[in-house]
Amino acid sequence: MALIVHKYGGTSMGSTDRIKNVAKRVAKWHDAGYQIVVVPSAMSGETNRIIGLAKEISAQPDPRELDMIASTGEQVSVGLLAIALQAIGKQAVSYAGWQVAIKTDSAHTKARISSIDDAKVKRDLDAGKIVIITGFQGVDESGDITTLGRGGSDTSAVAVAAALKAKECLIYTDVDGVYTTDPRVVSDARRLNTVTFEEMLEMASLGSKVLQIRSVEFAGNYKMPTRVLSSLTDPLMPLEEEIKSGTLISFEEDTNMEQATITGIAFNRDEAKITVFGVPDRPGIAYQILGPVADANIEVDMIIQNQSVEGKTDFTFTVPRVEYAQAMQVLSNDVQANIKATGIIGDTKVSKVSVVGVGMRSHVGIASQMFRTLSEEGINIQMISTSEIKISVLIDEKYMELAVRALHKAFGLENS
Amino acid sequence: MALIVHKYGGTSMGSTDRIKNVAKRVAKWHDAGYQIVVVPSAMSGETNRIIGLAKEISAQPDPRELDMIASTGEQVSVGLLAIALQAIGKQAVSYAGWQVAIKTDSAHTKARISSIDDAKVKRDLDAGKIVIITGFQGVDESGDITTLGRGGSDTSAVAVAAALKAKECLIYTDVDGVYTTDPRVVSDARRLNTVTFEEMLEMASLGSKVLQIRSVEFAGNYKMPTRVLSSLTDPLMPLEEEIKSGTLISFEEDTNMEQATITGIAFNRDEAKITVFGVPDRPGIAYQILGPVADANIEVDMIIQNQSVEGKTDFTFTVPRVEYAQAMQVLSNDVQANIKATGIIGDTKVSKVSVVGVGMRSHVGIASQMFRTLSEEGINIQMISTSEIKISVLIDEKYMELAVRALHKAFGLENS
Repeated sequence: MALIVHKYGGTSMGSTDRIKNVAKRVAKWHDAGYQIVVVPSAMSGETNRIIGLAKEISAQPDPRELDMIASTGEQVSVGLLAIALQAIGKQAVSYAGWQVAIKTDSAHTKARISSIDDAKVKRDLDAGKIVIITGFQGVDESGDITTLGRGGSDTSAVAVAAALKAKECLIYTDVDGVYTTDPRVVSDARRLNTVTFEEMLEMASLGSKVLQIRSVEFAGNYKMPTRVLSSLTDPLMPLEEEIKSGTLISFEEDTNMEQATITGIAFNRDEAKITVFGVPDRPGIAYQILGPVADANIEVDMIIQNQSVEGKTDFTFTVPRVEYAQAMQVLSNDVQANIKATGIIGDTKVSKVSVVGVGMRSHVGIASQMFRTLSEEGINIQMISTSEIKISVLIDEKYMELAVRALHKAFGLENS
Repeated sequence: MALIVHKYGGTSMGSTDRIKNVAKRVAKWHDAGYQIVVVPSAMSGETNRIIGLAKEISAQPDPRELDMIASTGEQVSVGLLAIALQAIGKQAVSYAGWQVAIKTDSAHTKARISSIDDAKVKRDLDAGKIVIITGFQGVDESGDITTLGRGGSDTSAVAVAAALKAKECLIYTDVDGVYTTDPRVVSDARRLNTVTFEEMLEMASLGSKVLQIRSVEFAGNYKMPTRVLSSLTDPLMPLEEEIKSGTLISFEEDTNMEQATITGIAFNRDEAKITVFGVPDRPGIAYQILGPVADANIEVDMIIQNQSVEGKTDFTFTVPRVEYAQAMQVLSNDVQANIKATGIIGDTKVSKVSVVGVGMRSHVGIASQMFRTLSEEGINIQMISTSEIKISVLIDEKYMELAVRALHKAFGLENS
């Protein structure tokens, strides 16, 4: 009997009526002969409410204690869903992360899953039960509760699917799949039937916030076919239809090679740019600048070092906008004097736009078409970064939507 | 270094400001050189809110799943209190029941504690940390979360205190101790400085709802000195004063022998009386009547069997008022025809009033004084039951407050 893992987001679990709808959908799959494991998120707003209480008490709450608190939202969800399934005649049993030994490291509030003990779950499934497991959380070696960070329920679902060797992991959410770009920016954005794992990775990390990036990595590591689909459809819609809906993240590149060269246009508004001026161009200078930034747990994305002139160069990089102030402080306090830079300036009004597609590997001229399109719209490119399957540019944030629309059109991604 | 266990009720934990106050009080005790373990309840209203969600989904939610859900309120509380203590410079760590192995049986929603593993807690205490443990919950042999039933946090606190061999268990609540009777009924009711374990057991089970009955049994079994005191006082009040406040449940009878013969007047409004008429008076008849009632998990309290006349007798007993309808149903369906009783009648407008005191053992005439007092007030006694340290009567509920006031005066319990 094929095993399918379902994951439902906070909105889908947002009220007792919605939970009853989730139960109906899950029961439909079970009736069709599938073994089902469900990984639900906390009811929407619940985790924020609880963390808000902690913040009322302390501006810097201890991460271990935050996890103790934040993990309760999912525990309520699994119990409620089990009750909803039992109410419509299904056998169901819920487990918190620690009860099925979802082991993680001890990085509280952003832990990583290391292993899952599947014995208990398999026993229940074989007995005909629907098993419901808390997303977002686990337990570390010392028995402390950990959480995986925002969106962590996606990761939990994929990890559970991988550990149980599921046939597919279905991520039910409030969008009906992955689009060529954000439909709020480009109205004729097209839903993709399939997307490769690598494309999804670039799309997710670049700001198409459909799936948590780590869940995509997990899906990739374990080659777990993962489908993003809507939880807003009629829960009793025909199964054959539902199985083909949404967007499948696939691990067979062939399926995509026949498609368009470019899969989608991703973007990220939350960028900030920092330039360190007049830096002596000598070995180790990049590390001297970025080491302290990394030590402060600030993630650096795009990096450019200018051609040096008279032994001096400029060094530019981007950081998440929320960490801009802290990054500037680290640089003024710990770096500037040390490396004898002549100045540091920053800009928080920048956005990143990327074209993504595995087809890019076998097609030349994608970059030049991208640059020509932006040039025709009069948009200046501030930074460029490339990988095998994407090209990203940093531009003034006020041109971001214009750039996305122009590129979407130029690469022929619209609905046909 | 003496170890003290503090327990705080839901009202004391009812807001982040109140939690900060609890932290101040706990810190004061820690500063004075005590090792402290805290067992807080869920924030008031929280457990009801969560259980309400379950009831919206199903009228009869599975007890195992209810426990999964209901246990989360305390988990939030312990985390928030740890954060509040850390915010004022204390080292603190929180644990859910399963993390310190509070093992219970599997009677979901009313489990009983069987053991507690103290190793982790002792290690933390010795390291100077304040340890905070969820009340109300534990874990059974199969690793399922259990809860102890309403008021279970009191039981948890006393059980933790016993397992850790604490010097005293302090139950902070919204009353400042145990009174000779309910001050809402008798305005000059007096706070008792000490009360013996047996008296407390009678007072608690008879309706003076200060402490959960099972916590008193636990305190008795382990001879754990337990003090009931107010959480509404200034958290920074002098420790010497606080130590002497409230009511100590003592295990040395001597301390009380010098006090008044009668310790208090307890009462219970939630009684219902059932009489089975024309029952053949033969061996085993009590079991034939009460066996099916007990099988339905209905607790029977007072029992009277009348002197038989011509081989027939009447059989009267009391049950909690909320279980009256179910008891009547069990009797009509399973009992009446079987034992050939001529009729069954019931009365839900009855109350129980009791005089309690260990001094009763060495004093005669308590019963006659009680009956005389009620007679002088024109109150008819419907049933009588006695133990070594209490006499209870069942009366028409409309005379209950009158009876309590008259007895409180007759036995000289008022404030002097």
